[in-house]
Amino acid sequence: MGNHVYKHIELTGSSAKSIEDAVSGAIAKASLTLRNIHWFEVVETRGHVEGGKVAHWQVTIKVGFTLEE
Amino acid sequence: MGNHVYKHIELTGSSAKSIEDAVSGAIAKASLTLRNIHWFEVVETRGHVEGGKVAHWQVTIKVGFTLEE
Amino acid sequence: MGNHVYKHIELTGSSAKSIEDAVSGAIAKASLTLRNIHWFEVVETRGHVEGGKVAHWQVTIKVGFTLEE
Amino acid sequence: MGNHVYKHIELTGSSAKSIEDAVSGAIAKASLTLRNIHWFEVVETRGHVEGGKVAHWQVTIKVGFTLEE
Amino acid sequence: MGNHVYKHIELTGSSAKSIEDAVSGAIAKASLTLRNIHWFEVVETRGHVEGGKVAHWQVTIKVGFTLEE
Amino acid sequence: MGNHVYKHIELTGSSAKSIEDAVSGAIAKASLTLRNIHWFEVVETRGHVEGGKVAHWQVTIKVGFTLEE
Amino acid sequence: MGNHVYKHIELTGSSAKSIEDAVSGAIAKASLTLRNIHWFEVVETRGHVEGGKVAHWQVTIKVGFTLEE
Amino acid sequence: MGNHVYKHIELTGSSAKSIEDAVSGAIAKASLTLRNIHWFEVVETRGHVEGGKVAHWQVTIKVGFTLEE
Amino acid sequence: MGNHVYKHIELTGSSAKSIEDAVSGAIAKASLTLRNIHWFEVVETRGHVEGGKVAHWQVTIKVGFTLEE
Amino acid sequence: MGNHVYKHIELTGSSAKSIEDAVSGAIAKASLTLRNIHWFEVVETRGHVEGGKVAHWQVTIKVGFTLEE
Amino acid sequence: MGNHVYKHIELTGSSAKSIEDAVSGAIAKASLTLRNIHWFEVVETRGHVEGGKVAHWQVTIKVGFTLEE
Amino acid sequence: MGNHVYKHIELTGSSAKSIEDAVSGAIAKASLTLRNIHWFEVVETRGHVEGGKVAHWQVTIKVGFTLEE
Repeated sequence: MGNHVYKHIELTGSSAKSIEDAVSGAIAKASLTLRNIHWFEVVETRGHVEGGKVAHWQVTIKVGFTLEE
Repeated sequence: MGNHVYKHIELTGSSAKSIEDAVSGAIAKASLTLRNIHWFEVVETRGHVEGGKVAHWQVTIKVGFTLEE
Repeated sequence: MGNHVYKHIELTGSSAKSIEDAVSGAIAKASLTLRNIHWFEVVETRGHVEGGKVAHWQVTIKVGFTLEE
Repeated sequence: MGNHVYKHIELTGSSAKSIEDAVSGAIAKASLTLRNIHWFEVVETRGHVEGGKVAHWQVTIKVGFTLEE
Repeated sequence: MGNHVYKHIELTGSSAKSIEDAVSGAIAKASLTLRNIHWFEVVETRGHVEGGKVAHWQVTIKVGFTLEE
Repeated sequence: MGNHVYKHIELTGSSAKSIEDAVSGAIAKASLTLRNIHWFEVVETRGHVEGGKVAHWQVTIKVGFTLEE
Repeated sequence: MGNHVYKHIELTGSSAKSIEDAVSGAIAKASLTLRNIHWFEVVETRGHVEGGKVAHWQVTIKVGFTLEE
Repeated sequence: MGNHVYKHIELTGSSAKSIEDAVSGAIAKASLTLRNIHWFEVVETRGHVEGGKVAHWQVTIKVGFTLEE
Repeated sequence: MGNHVYKHIELTGSSAKSIEDAVSGAIAKASLTLRNIHWFEVVETRGHVEGGKVAHWQVTIKVGFTLEE
Repeated sequence: MGNHVYKHIELTGSSAKSIEDAVSGAIAKASLTLRNIHWFEVVETRGHVEGGKVAHWQVTIKVGFTLEE
Repeated sequence: MGNHVYKHIELTGSSAKSIEDAVSGAIAKASLTLRNIHWFEVVETRGHVEGGKVAHWQVTIKVGFTLEE
Repeated sequence: MGNHVYKHIELTGSSAKSIEDAVSGAIAKASLTLRNIHWFEVVETRGHVEGGKVAHWQVTIKVGFTLEE
């Protein structure tokens, strides 16, 4: 754990399938430019409704990663 | 988006299967009488336990819909 | 419901698969020593990330059970 | 518990006598038009003061009831 | 103040002009069907952005009215 | 309601008897030096326990009064 | 006050009579096995409704006691 | 900034015109007796409704000022 | 809405004129470097006071924008 | 504990040295005019930064004292 | 991290010296009976005042430990 | 104060020594790439425990800095 400094950013992923899928999508996207993502925390779970059905789950997460040396 | 006015109501859906299924059930039920449901937000996730297993997921959502002209 | 007294404890379950699975695991574990678990409430949903993927869902729940007579 | 869907509404009851009496009054009033009220939760406890005395207790509750089939 | 019972509902008004205008619009709309609206409380202030400018202010309010005898 | 300005202060009253009695005591005490107290809101309800019984209810309230002209 | 260490647990008491009675019942029950309970704080006040009347007040409290030497 | 000590008080200003006007009124009133007010924070925005229109905006602010030497 | 991923950042704008103007200024500034800003949410409204008057409104907003493909 | 009534005020102390020193400074200052301060609770810990270093810790506390008979 | 289940308990440590010392005391005490304590989170920082000085820092922490297999 | 726009980011610093040291470390690290850091606010204080002792204090702060012209 040492004396690292971590930064947190807030992202929203969306998925037509599930809450887990919306989170995974946001983390996959962020990992394209950020190395060292270690954890996330779900901040908010919302969704869009069309025709009486959930069209998209939208899950906002806080993501933590190590600031590189 | 215009100058519409939206109303929010709070519902709890329940399902033996999953969090997503409990939400979908509440929205399907509400859609029988409310047209124009646009979004929801998960407010609380609880459940009942029987015999050391989750018997029902109970998910409370806030649902938003357009007040009709 | 009567005049029972309930106690609540806070647990974190983890699962590589889903939020529901992390909750179920924590309840199954607690049921080994506690009889009379009746309900739970999700308090926090977090997770660990490895290589740009969710490695573990970690879900903290408050669990309620009847204090035995 | 089954697959029922519950709706919650927010009410404020008032009473010159006690917190319990303000809650009971709001529930009695709501029961005139809503069948199937199952539970309530106290959201806020306020009051009016006149001449250095509590004139009315005003208790806001969230009330849950089953949406009828 | 007496022994009235009040009900609260949650609405979102929107306006291209100001926060105050979004609130007034929601209250005017609700007053078409609800008599006896007495107060409101701002719950959330959001907005949509288009081309680097605020296109709509969206203000969510809780509105309180007397349940009629 | 006019253009008055109100000030709020926070007090804790205590009583061996009830929550209502603790609130009433705090308001009576404050009224000795403050005219124009109009309302209160319960902020916290705690108590001291001695020998397995509630010895004192301690209720913290926010009290609002008109600043005099 | 010294260098004692305190532990807090969360309990729910229920009573057909009053909020105070539900709290007192939970503390009396906990005192059968825990010595040195010093204080409590009300965390949540809920209840069950049957036939338009409050059937049980259910009050959740956090209870603090000294860890014995 | 030095080693000053600041005190905060809570005020509610009201205005028929706007949120900003309600805040300014409360600060002007408090400045008659308090020197050294440095900042404020909006705590709550409410209002009274008459005849389907906002009659008064009521804005509660926390005000900070330096305790004089 | 699709499978986009959104990022949120937190900004504070300030204005001598109004809350709306402080928000608009922060969004205009952010739009110089960020395309695709879609929404904002007001997180905190504060201000500085000089000579008994509001010198600057300082409004903190959370701003959401699409992460580009 | 008896039937005393307590009042709470909110103060911010500042110190270049530590959080504890900022709290102690605020309490020492308040004790010059208030007898009977019994407890405090930390409400917020902030600070000013100059040249990449913490210049002042600013700790806001709620302070409780007995209203004198 | 695997499929362990963690339990959280809430403790208050006290110290005449510092916030850090109050936390360390609570953890040392808990470690006498609980193996596998992994983390803590500060929930509340309070203190007692005597003669215008902080007599004891009282810090409440949530402590997490692995439930043993 | 003028019409500057500020941005806030969230960081976690860690230290084996103290809460203050963990905050100072995060600010020193952020200052290597960000000029114009003006203030911080403590958001969360946690820590890791090894062998019944606090191994690292982990303090999460929100940091504010001026967006450069």
